[in-house]
Amino acid sequence: MSVPKTTPYNCLEIEAWSPVLRDAAKEVFSMMAGMELAATEESVLVQTPEITAIVGLAGSLCGLLSVRCSNTVANKIASQMLGLGSEDAAQHRGDAIGEICNMVAGHFKAKIVGLDDKCLLSVPSVISGENYTFHSLSAGRRIEVFLQASEGPIWVALETRN
Amino acid sequence: MSVPKTTPYNCLEIEAWSPVLRDAAKEVFSMMAGMELAATEESVLVQTPEITAIVGLAGSLCGLLSVRCSNTVANKIASQMLGLGSEDAAQHRGDAIGEICNMVAGHFKAKIVGLDDKCLLSVPSVISGENYTFHSLSAGRRIEVFLQASEGPIWVALETRN
Repeated sequence: MSVPKTTPYNCLEIEAWSPVLRDAAKEVFSMMAGMELAATEESVLVQTPEITAIVGLAGSLCGLLSVRCSNTVANKIASQMLGLGSEDAAQHRGDAIGEICNMVAGHFKAKIVGLDDKCLLSVPSVISGENYTFHSLSAGRRIEVFLQASEGPIWVALETRN
Repeated sequence: MSVPKTTPYNCLEIEAWSPVLRDAAKEVFSMMAGMELAATEESVLVQTPEITAIVGLAGSLCGLLSVRCSNTVANKIASQMLGLGSEDAAQHRGDAIGEICNMVAGHFKAKIVGLDDKCLLSVPSVISGENYTFHSLSAGRRIEVFLQASEGPIWVALETRN
């Protein structure tokens, strides 16, 4: 996909990347899963995420990008991305949200001038369960965007190491 | 720490890295936490891991390194690394196992000729809970070593993307 680069890379200005992350996520969901997401406020999101996809970033930007949602939303992503019925979609929701997470990270870093070729992605991973906590040891900065699909909310976060 | 490089980097020979990963893990646990671990066989390990630390690798080797153990073992790691009593150790076990994971990954890649400066680490992250599953989308190769502390088993795994 063609990616206009409009935002210069500056580690001190990660907070300014929030709209870039939001746009990257919205564009990937639209292109890959045909899902048009609305940006929303955190307070609207009362559901607890059941599934978390993560991908590491290493290089001049070192951190972690995560995408979290309910199983219902993940089923929808799998169904839309892979053209599957509901039963098959549930089986493939982990892979689907993992690939979406990977693509959001790739699309996000492609939007930042001077970052794309200096920041590499590790492989995506997926955590799911009824009772788990997840946190990164980034001890740095964090931006998070809140998106709304018709099936429920989607959280996209970037945590960076200073 | 001084790291003798004895193993050449060759993506096709990841299985040959198993002893390198085992040694890297044993050395880091010994040096950082004063824990002398014994290598063991998978079948000995009947406990379920309660806490998982992961760190992404990106570059010429793209993958994920994970360290898993029980909360009891993680408490011991925190207590030994940070010199804490049992209550404080429980509070810091996530950070402790995350840092151990990061150091095992760094020490491992430093042991492979031609890999160290071409493989970067993302930030470590920690998953904990009573009921969760974790898997990477590496779709590549996986090596795992099984270590035994006096408090219980420790799993160290490397998954790579082909």
